[in-house]
Amino acid sequence: MIELEHGGGGFKNNELIRQLREIINLKTDWSNTEDDAAIYDLGDQKLVFTTDAFIIDPIFFPGGDIGKIATCGTINDLAVMGAKPLGLSLSVVIEEGFAKKDLFKIAESIDKISKETNIPIVTGDTKVIDKGKLDKIEITTAGVGLANKVIDNGGAKVGDNIITSGDLGEHGVTLLAYRFDYQTDIKSDCKPLWEEFQAVGNLLNAAKDPTRGGVAANINEIADKSKVKIILDEDKLPYKKDVIALTELLGIELFNLPSEGRFIAAVSEKNTDQALKKLHEFNPEAKVIGKCVEGEGVFLKTKLGSERRIEEPKGKLIPRIC
Amino acid sequence: MIELEHGGGGFKNNELIRQLREIINLKTDWSNTEDDAAIYDLGDQKLVFTTDAFIIDPIFFPGGDIGKIATCGTINDLAVMGAKPLGLSLSVVIEEGFAKKDLFKIAESIDKISKETNIPIVTGDTKVIDKGKLDKIEITTAGVGLANKVIDNGGAKVGDNIITSGDLGEHGVTLLAYRFDYQTDIKSDCKPLWEEFQAVGNLLNAAKDPTRGGVAANINEIADKSKVKIILDEDKLPYKKDVIALTELLGIELFNLPSEGRFIAAVSEKNTDQALKKLHEFNPEAKVIGKCVEGEGVFLKTKLGSERRIEEPKGKLIPRIC
Repeated sequence: MIELEHGGGGFKNNELIRQLREIINLKTDWSNTEDDAAIYDLGDQKLVFTTDAFIIDPIFFPGGDIGKIATCGTINDLAVMGAKPLGLSLSVVIEEGFAKKDLFKIAESIDKISKETNIPIVTGDTKVIDKGKLDKIEITTAGVGLANKVIDNGGAKVGDNIITSGDLGEHGVTLLAYRFDYQTDIKSDCKPLWEEFQAVGNLLNAAKDPTRGGVAANINEIADKSKVKIILDEDKLPYKKDVIALTELLGIELFNLPSEGRFIAAVSEKNTDQALKKLHEFNPEAKVIGKCVEGEGVFLKTKLGSERRIEEPKGKLIPRIC
Repeated sequence: MIELEHGGGGFKNNELIRQLREIINLKTDWSNTEDDAAIYDLGDQKLVFTTDAFIIDPIFFPGGDIGKIATCGTINDLAVMGAKPLGLSLSVVIEEGFAKKDLFKIAESIDKISKETNIPIVTGDTKVIDKGKLDKIEITTAGVGLANKVIDNGGAKVGDNIITSGDLGEHGVTLLAYRFDYQTDIKSDCKPLWEEFQAVGNLLNAAKDPTRGGVAANINEIADKSKVKIILDEDKLPYKKDVIALTELLGIELFNLPSEGRFIAAVSEKNTDQALKKLHEFNPEAKVIGKCVEGEGVFLKTKLGSERRIEEPKGKLIPRIC
């Protein structure tokens, strides 16, 4: 039986995807098909293709809405691969009785990101389902992009620094705070990443945006695929005080919190200063948060000098936040 | 307020899409963005990109299931444009409590079409929504294809014959019969069209697969975009007796019935015999059903010689059949 954890971005989700992949397994010319975006070699350049489904609750939240997150999510999956997003598809399933003005508000939000980034919505589908058979609205976007050189999450090297493009987890706590009716000034970090990735992409060895499953899922992927051990420094944790306080209050693992407008990257010692200088034009909170060393797994080096392992998210994850 | 008709493939659906398109309207290098698949010029060839959402009820039906239809639907949207499908994305939203064995059965069905057509599933997303917040499962596929020459639905010329690749409407009546608990031997016509389209594509002036909204939506699109009048011949109606009987019994407009494995095309007088000969290798029921003449609109020439207009579907359409 399918449980909520099968969609949470953690261990059970990955296990389900592995099971589906054992069934749906045509050998193909595409590469990177186990990751968020697949790659097809067009000869002179690479075609990158990705998709994401959004069933978030609430659909409007401080800092964004389901339209913004659906647009940014797919743009970002292309951007962090170093692919220039060419165009997106937009598929919308709407519950009968949904307010047209809310639908149009969501459309305006999609249009705003599309115009800001100059990435068009080029094809779509609209379906309506009987009242009571869906919770308001579901949006699936897919996107295609072109890259000269793909950056994936398997290129981190021993000696590389791990950097973040900004403070993390604000998207996750924003939705959680809303759901638990907790007052806070924190807003979702949801935003398109193509512009900043364009500025620094050529300096990076590996990159990934920490959405579902947060840094715990994300950095473990980089460590696994790159065959390095990653040590994060507790002194440099990229979380605002309010974010930490809220996760403690709600009993949520900080490292599982999703962001929707940040990326984590592995960058050589030599390129680190230049990358951070460029990233600071977008966000002053971009910084080094850890280091790649020989070994495997992801560890947090505490202020007292001990190491605790940060595992792929395993427990009950709060559903429908990204 | 959103009504079921806003997703039915007819007039209200098109009106809603027009309204959304007034909001989401970034000028773009892509063409054909108002149709089922958009086109991007890569120089030596065209990239074709499409998406479709599936919320059908029932999810298993005679002749297929939601996995088969989601795979064929996107393959066919690419195929009828003359684009070789390169790869599909698969985004699945599952209701908590859904049986894993049913999910795996759907995956097997997707894999079967993928292997038969040699078109891989290359990227995806899996989300789970709380019990009671979705009716079982929703699948969205997107697809990318490459074409040397795109065939769209605006190329029909005065004098062209209108042909069908086989009898129509069987998918629609299969799902309706199931929903109304009516016993019939009819099975869904759901199948991938790439192989037969590859055989005849270069002979056609315009083509389209009559899915949501059926022939009524489909041939009106060809007539509108090609600026021709299309006359269908009542003597040559491509519907099986049982299909006609069931629509009469249920009070459903025959021409609104969707097919999921057929296409309609405009073909010159000169190429008609050759196209039909090739199509007969796949389906003996491929035949001429009408003609393009000067004028506009779509008309049915009755056995008595009078003409009745076949309009874009306007009334209440049965939802969730494709």
